[in-house]
Amino acid sequence: MSERKFFALGTGSQAPTRTRNQNGYFLRWDEQGILFDPGEGTQRQMIYSGVSANSITKIFISHFHGDHCLGLAGVLQRLSLDNVPHPVEVYFPAYGIDYFRHLSQASVYYGRAEIIAKPFDSPGVLFENDRFIISTLPLDHTVECWGFRLQEKDGVSFQTEKLEALGIKGPMVGQLKRAGQITLEDRTISLEEVTVQKKGQIFSFVLDTRPCSNAIELASNADMLLCEATFLNEHEKEAREYGHMTAAQAATIADEAKARLLLLTHFSQRYTNMDGYHSETKPIFENVVCLNDGDIVEVPSRNKN
Amino acid sequence: MSERKFFALGTGSQAPTRTRNQNGYFLRWDEQGILFDPGEGTQRQMIYSGVSANSITKIFISHFHGDHCLGLAGVLQRLSLDNVPHPVEVYFPAYGIDYFRHLSQASVYYGRAEIIAKPFDSPGVLFENDRFIISTLPLDHTVECWGFRLQEKDGVSFQTEKLEALGIKGPMVGQLKRAGQITLEDRTISLEEVTVQKKGQIFSFVLDTRPCSNAIELASNADMLLCEATFLNEHEKEAREYGHMTAAQAATIADEAKARLLLLTHFSQRYTNMDGYHSETKPIFENVVCLNDGDIVEVPSRNKN
Repeated sequence: MSERKFFALGTGSQAPTRTRNQNGYFLRWDEQGILFDPGEGTQRQMIYSGVSANSITKIFISHFHGDHCLGLAGVLQRLSLDNVPHPVEVYFPAYGIDYFRHLSQASVYYGRAEIIAKPFDSPGVLFENDRFIISTLPLDHTVECWGFRLQEKDGVSFQTEKLEALGIKGPMVGQLKRAGQITLEDRTISLEEVTVQKKGQIFSFVLDTRPCSNAIELASNADMLLCEATFLNEHEKEAREYGHMTAAQAATIADEAKARLLLLTHFSQRYTNMDGYHSETKPIFENVVCLNDGDIVEVPSRNKN
Repeated sequence: MSERKFFALGTGSQAPTRTRNQNGYFLRWDEQGILFDPGEGTQRQMIYSGVSANSITKIFISHFHGDHCLGLAGVLQRLSLDNVPHPVEVYFPAYGIDYFRHLSQASVYYGRAEIIAKPFDSPGVLFENDRFIISTLPLDHTVECWGFRLQEKDGVSFQTEKLEALGIKGPMVGQLKRAGQITLEDRTISLEEVTVQKKGQIFSFVLDTRPCSNAIELASNADMLLCEATFLNEHEKEAREYGHMTAAQAATIADEAKARLLLLTHFSQRYTNMDGYHSETKPIFENVVCLNDGDIVEVPSRNKN
């Protein structure tokens, strides 16, 4: 239940290649399954990665360039084909309501699945429950584009060895948690005495964009930052012109945001190997993974903080 | 220029699998490049098969189930991305005009390519030039669905050894072809004396459908018949219910139509090997190929008839 894993379904920009499909990212976060930016062919990439339609609970679309959304048509139809029983919310920038409608009604099918459109047009919280918050901020691309941040709420963890030593067990644990304290024969124990603070984990999604302050804000203290790095230094001018980043700029954002792990993606098809990506990011940020289609990465755990 | 080759881009029905993408077929016919039924991911399958967007001159859609059309969105965008200089005609059943529109406007892109919509709603000729005719007939599926037939016009071939013996060469050949005869010093030679009749080649496209007389008519004397064979005998009832054919029914159509080569496709994902397809078609029709994604098959030549 507490599995937190990231799946790279597609890692190429613009057009697919033999080795990279267009974008597509899946985040398994406890009971949630969040699909981001499904490019064309995401339905099939999910099969290769062992991600079932049934595991999708939410879909987020950063913007409506084709490599970030054309796969939505197939995914929505697959949710119906597979009789997925739970509703699936689709969050997307409100300007794309017609694109969303077109992708939802792109061919003849029987729409059994409950799809809930969640267009948004302002920064802030998109979803919140008792355990985490998903928020959004605008980025700096050639069309309106938004980044996302999933922030787990801070919590507490019981120290089992202390509970045992005090003889607190069974229903007493729940009682302590609810009341904040529990009275034993000889003394009263507060929650603080037998727990440690647990900082929530953070996942950040930053593509497509030029470097900007909102990218850093989204990535602030992220345990895992997924960031576009379409170009290398030699094409910094093209990056600026087309509203993208270089690998070094992505690494700089990770560094300034104090992120813990940087996953790079959205590579221009001109780069056939990742050597330049490693050499240009290493001096700036240590913990970098250049994603390949099919990669699965665990969200780094926070044992204590 | 006179290359006539068939490319199987995707051979699965309904949903993609690890080994089969959804439908997608490309026919290279001299200077024409005809794409049929592009399912999701066709853009990428084209890369694997070495089919460029630039080589597409016409697109045909049999019906608007997703596995036969969702890839149109990506293909249309790719035509623009690649600056394809020639117009591309898209033929599709007129009831699907909204689906066509949705797939054409599924995301933000700059539409540079000239796309010419050719909706049709009655049987007959869809395209004709001096060399071939493409016609359509309705099939028997769960939604309105049409098959296609490309028929090369019959022509004549000069017998070069006869021309040489008579001393007919250079501009005289053209003169003979245009006038139907040519007068030499001692006699008049008619076109018939130095040519042989050349029957045109025929390619037929029959999916998705139950067995029906129009399927046979479309396939009549086809050199190459592409036919759906979603099921095997054990699932004949399902085939009927879902508007499809069994392999034996496809073979029977090929036999009754006197086709020369039968290409089977659109396989249900329940079949993980093709043994049943071979054993159930062999007693009915000899020349059968069970297509795999990536297969390239030459249209059988007709040396004489």
